[in-house]
Formats: sequence, C-alpha cells, structure tokens
Amino acid sequence: MAVVPSTKVVAPLKDELDIVIPTIRNLDFLEMWRPFFEQYHLIIVQDGDPTKTIRVPDGFDYELYNRNDINRILGPKASCISFKDSACRCFGFMVSKKKYIFTIDDDCFVAKDPSGKEINALAQHIQNLLTPSTPFFFNTLYDPYREGADFVRGYPFSMREGAPTAISHGLWLNIPDYDAPTQLVKPRERNTRYVDAVLTIPKGTLFPMCGMNLGFDRELIGPAMYFGLMGDGQPIGRYDDMWAGWCAKVICDHLSLGVKTGLPYIWHSKASNPFVNLKKEYKGIYWQEEIIPFFQSVTLPKECTTVQKCYIELSKLVKEKLGHVDPYFQKLGDAMVTWIDAWDELNPPAVPATEPVAKKDAPPPKAK
Amino acid sequence: MAVVPSTKVVAPLKDELDIVIPTIRNLDFLEMWRPFFEQYHLIIVQDGDPTKTIRVPDGFDYELYNRNDINRILGPKASCISFKDSACRCFGFMVSKKKYIFTIDDDCFVAKDPSGKEINALAQHIQNLLTPSTPFFFNTLYDPYREGADFVRGYPFSMREGAPTAISHGLWLNIPDYDAPTQLVKPRERNTRYVDAVLTIPKGTLFPMCGMNLGFDRELIGPAMYFGLMGDGQPIGRYDDMWAGWCAKVICDHLSLGVKTGLPYIWHSKASNPFVNLKKEYKGIYWQEEIIPFFQSVTLPKECTTVQKCYIELSKLVKEKLGHVDPYFQKLGDAMVTWIDAWDELNPPAVPATEPVAKKDAPPPKAK
Repeated sequence: MAVVPSTKVVAPLKDELDIVIPTIRNLDFLEMWRPFFEQYHLIIVQDGDPTKTIRVPDGFDYELYNRNDINRILGPKASCISFKDSACRCFGFMVSKKKYIFTIDDDCFVAKDPSGKEINALAQHIQNLLTPSTPFFFNTLYDPYREGADFVRGYPFSMREGAPTAISHGLWLNIPDYDAPTQLVKPRERNTRYVDAVLTIPKGTLFPMCGMNLGFDRELIGPAMYFGLMGDGQPIGRYDDMWAGWCAKVICDHLSLGVKTGLPYIWHSKASNPFVNLKKEYKGIYWQEEIIPFFQSVTLPKECTTVQKCYIELSKLVKEKLGHVDPYFQKLGDAMVTWIDAWDELNPPAVPATEPVAKKDAPPPKAK
Repeated sequence: MAVVPSTKVVAPLKDELDIVIPTIRNLDFLEMWRPFFEQYHLIIVQDGDPTKTIRVPDGFDYELYNRNDINRILGPKASCISFKDSACRCFGFMVSKKKYIFTIDDDCFVAKDPSGKEINALAQHIQNLLTPSTPFFFNTLYDPYREGADFVRGYPFSMREGAPTAISHGLWLNIPDYDAPTQLVKPRERNTRYVDAVLTIPKGTLFPMCGMNLGFDRELIGPAMYFGLMGDGQPIGRYDDMWAGWCAKVICDHLSLGVKTGLPYIWHSKASNPFVNLKKEYKGIYWQEEIIPFFQSVTLPKECTTVQKCYIELSKLVKEKLGHVDPYFQKLGDAMVTWIDAWDELNPPAVPATEPVAKKDAPPPKAK
C-alpha cells in the first residue's frame, strides 16, 4: 500500500490536489522538490511587497497571488487575510478548486529516511488522507491501516472502520519547530530522530498544528483552515497555524473527522531568528494559557452540521469567552466571520441558494 | 538521560522494583534476560497444577507462589485471583512490597534495536516511569523529556511539568498482540517495525493495555491493576489485561496520572493458538462493544481521592451499568471489591486505622 516513488515519480491525485506555498523570496527550493511536485499545480501566495518579482523555477505549473491580487479578488473582505506573515497562505486554500491541499514552507527540503532514501512527503500525506483515522480508541501499533500493521487485541470491532481523515500533519528533521524561549535555551538542538509512525490524535485532544508541512482535505475541513490575523498591524505572530489547528481539531472532533500526525518528515533547513520570534510570540505565549483551556472546553451544538456552521459558532464563542483577554479576540472573531463569507463567495455550495430546511436537522456525519 | 546497559548492566531501582512473571512452565527464558534481570527480585506466580515443580535458572533471586500459596495467604479472598489464566499475575502485584513492578510473559525474549543492540526493556520502562507524562495536550515530537526532544511551539508552558507517570506500556516485535480473528486472517503477519517513540496516551482516551511487557508504579496505581476473573470457571479469557487497562486508565485520568506507550520492545516468540484463543475471547469480542462505551462515559466523583476509592466506585458502576450484559459482571464487580479488601489487608496503609476526616475533602493529586 505504501506509495513508493520510482525513477519517474507516480503522482497520485495530481488533478485533485494543489500545493500552496507562502513566500517572500525566489522559489529556488522547488528545484529539490522537482521530481515530487512537478506534476502538481502550485498556488503561490506572495507575502510582503507586491511590486517585487518572485522567481519560480521553469517547468512548474503555478498561479501566483500578491497582495494586490488578494485585495482585488476579495475587496473589503481582504481584511481577513494577514499581511507580512505566512498566515497569508490560507488565501491559497480559499482560491483552490481542488479537493486536497498540501502546504509547505519555502525553507523546507526533501528529507531522507534512515535507509538514505529521499522521502516523498506529498505521497505520504496523500496516503494518510486516503486512509481512515482512528480517533475514538487508541491503537498501540499506531496506524492500523498501514502495511504490516493492524488493530491490536482489545480494539473494538465496531470502531475498526475508523473515521474519514481530514488532516495529515507532517514533521521535521533537523530544525525542530520550537518556540522562541526553547530556541534561545537550546540553540543547537536538532531533531535527528526518525520515528516511523503515523498516528491519529484522539478525539478530545488538542495538538500544536504546524503549517510547515501539512496536508488536508479541503472538502472536509477547508473552511476551518483559517490562519487568523497575524503579522503587520496585529499584536501577534507565529500563532497562525496554532489557531487553525485548535479550531480545526475542535471541529473535526465535533464532525467525527480524523487528524493524523507523524510521517512524512521534511528537512527544515534554517532556524528563524529567536529574538524576532520572541517579539512575535510573547503575547501568544501567555494568551495560550487561556486560549487552550477555552478550546478544551468548547462544545458545539448538534445543529452545527457543516464546517461553516461550526466555524461561525466558534467565532461567537471566541468573542464571548476570549474577548476579556484582549480586544484582539473581538477583531479575530469578526475576521473569522469575514473569512467564511469570503470562502462561501469563492466556493459557492454545489447545491445553490435553496438549501433544504430538513438538512438543518440532519445528524452530523458519523464514522462510517 | 538514556539508560544504556554496559558490559556489567547498571540496575536502576534494583531495590525498589519487582519483576512479576506468571507461568506454567520452567523459566528457561530467563537465561536470555540474565544480564538485565539478575540483580532484581522476581515474583513468580505459578499457574495451574500446584504439585508441578517449576524450574528457575540458578542465580536468580525469587519467590514463587502456586495456587496452594495463594489460597493459604488470601483464604476466602483467593476467589478473586484467576486460575488457569495469566490473570493470576496480579497476585504478584499484591504481595510485592516494592514501589515499581515490571511484568513480562515467559514467551518474551530480548529484542534488538535497528542497530542490532539488545534492548534493555526494563531500563526503558524505568526511564518511562521516572519521567513525567503529558496527558493534557499532545506533543507532536512525542516524549518531550527524552534527550534531543522538547515541547514544540504552541505547547502551553503551564503544562510542561506534565503529570506523574503511573504506567509504562511496552510493545512487541515479531508476533503482534492480535485477537483470534485477526490471527486467523493474518497468520503470517509479523511486527518488524521499530517505532522509536514513547508517547503519552491523552487524558480521556482509552487504549488496549497488553500485560506482556508492562511496567507500573505500584504506589500510584497498584490497586487498579486487577486482572479480573478469567480462565477456569469463567466465561471469558484473554481480557485480563484489557480489563486492568480500562479500569486503570479511567482512574489515571481521574487522578491526573499519566500512561505511556511505545518503547521498549520485547521479542514475542510464539503466537498462541488462534482456535483456543477464539474460544476464550468470543464473549469478550462482543461484550467489549458495550464495555468500552461504558468506560468512555465513566466519571468518578471528586470524593474519590485514592485509587482504592476510585476502584470501589468503579465496581459499583460495573454492576449497575454492565450487569445487564451478563451475570458475569455482577460476579466481577464483587471480585473487584474482594481484590481491594485483599490488597488493603496485605498492604496496610502507612497511616493506620484513624485516617483524618479532613483527608476526604482533599483535592485529587495534580500534575506537579
């Protein structure tokens, strides 16, 4: 079942997946990914100065959006897309028309497995997304759908069909994804441990989702993948992916969707500046002490049967329960609503306008 | 921080840990474990015919209990200890006077890591037990206390001290711990994947605990490590460790204690007979469809501030909520109470008789 690249790399789902890359520089890093990415379509979200020209290596099929494009396409709703922060990547999620998204940072390179073979990160994400998750009970041999593994003794048979997988969270060799204080304390720490596992993050458990190497099913969870208000003009940075992760996990739990973490690894080449990071992060570091208990206690009403409805409900709770932490959360709650408006405008529902009323009472999707 | 065996193996906690082995045969398997076990005390629980003599290789320090010993020591309370089933191992947990227990099956041998080095399973369990767990939030780089790892960006700082670790659940190379149906369907499947990770099973998530290769802190969780009524005269077998795992996990969650799984691996040499297993398991296979939702929904009252109190409360809930499944659960509920009576008789509390009344209102132990 493992998707193994041969000399000519097989490109699974090549017409159903977009690769989203936020960047401020020339995309020379794509050269190393050429065998794995060249058959896919890229959506490049150019951050910062829109007059700058970003060079993309020849032979890649891509569309590129800079700030002017975002403003033109979204009009006033462009206010929900961050500027001067990689949070802008979520604009790419919104304009994509594909079922699946893989997003990667431009300082991430191809890693090698312990045998020295180059890892096709994208193929592993696809494998993760196309096989079910097991959020309702823990399997001690990790992913039971993987070749050579299965459910262990004591795993309830009724739960063995699992749940549809919405998110595949990949990891990083070399530079680990540490916060500024940990970077400062352990400047030389490198991640050299290749853990050969994919596992489902259990229902009810939050995790720190990193946007560096991330796949997801846009149809299942896309509208929850909003990376918040970060960067220019905002009091906080480097919490964009965390925000998306907290919101998306709570919604996946509510809708009985799965979130996996583990393989694939990418090679994260360069630690960002810990002093700059500290400045961006410090509010997040103490705010998260209230944000996380908030998300841990969120329960969404059963009327919330779509990601959009869940997200709107969450935006209200954010304003209501986090508003006291800082006025920023009022603004963020509003931006969450704007994001959904913009999403629905660019992604009109397949069944237009007259949604049947009965649908409101339909139960949330269940694990098949 | 890794505990690495040298030529003369260092024996951490050698005066604070007992190795408990249930068996019906000569313990030749200990020869392979000699470098790792010989400095520890063994408690051997002889199952089946008590007139049979079990041979223990020379040089090991051990005490051995057969059925006659169990009956003599526990009197009528011996009814809670299973006969003709490895569930009898929990008698060893009860008679131990040590803080830590490691229990292993007699068909488990020393495994090798990918570099070919023999794995000191006991040392890894000790390391797992002596470092905290992280049950309240998921760390994507697995055990943050391990050398070369840490908490990732977005992990709340207030949760980084973790929780005391009560249980260390080790895994198995070669023969995986499958139920009879899976054994029948995949007779040749072998576990060859060495996953170099230890992780905490999040709060609120149940797991299938296997008793083959298991360490725990007797002071923190011992009285919950009852392996139930299995084997001779009972309608079910091979659910002894599962039962203990469900009960112990629910109690660990209530008392804010941690449960880890992953490393160490042992080499599981021989698959048991799937036809015999099917006969033992089949009731468990359908009962667990009701048992697991029961355990998933259990909440213990805050007055339950000790493992014993939690366990007695759980015994009542078992009778009340599972009694309709089969009369067996009435009997099991009673046996759970007998087990606690016997435990307290053999392990009188350090502060005798007059427990201060105020203690009843003390909050449950918190993550330090």
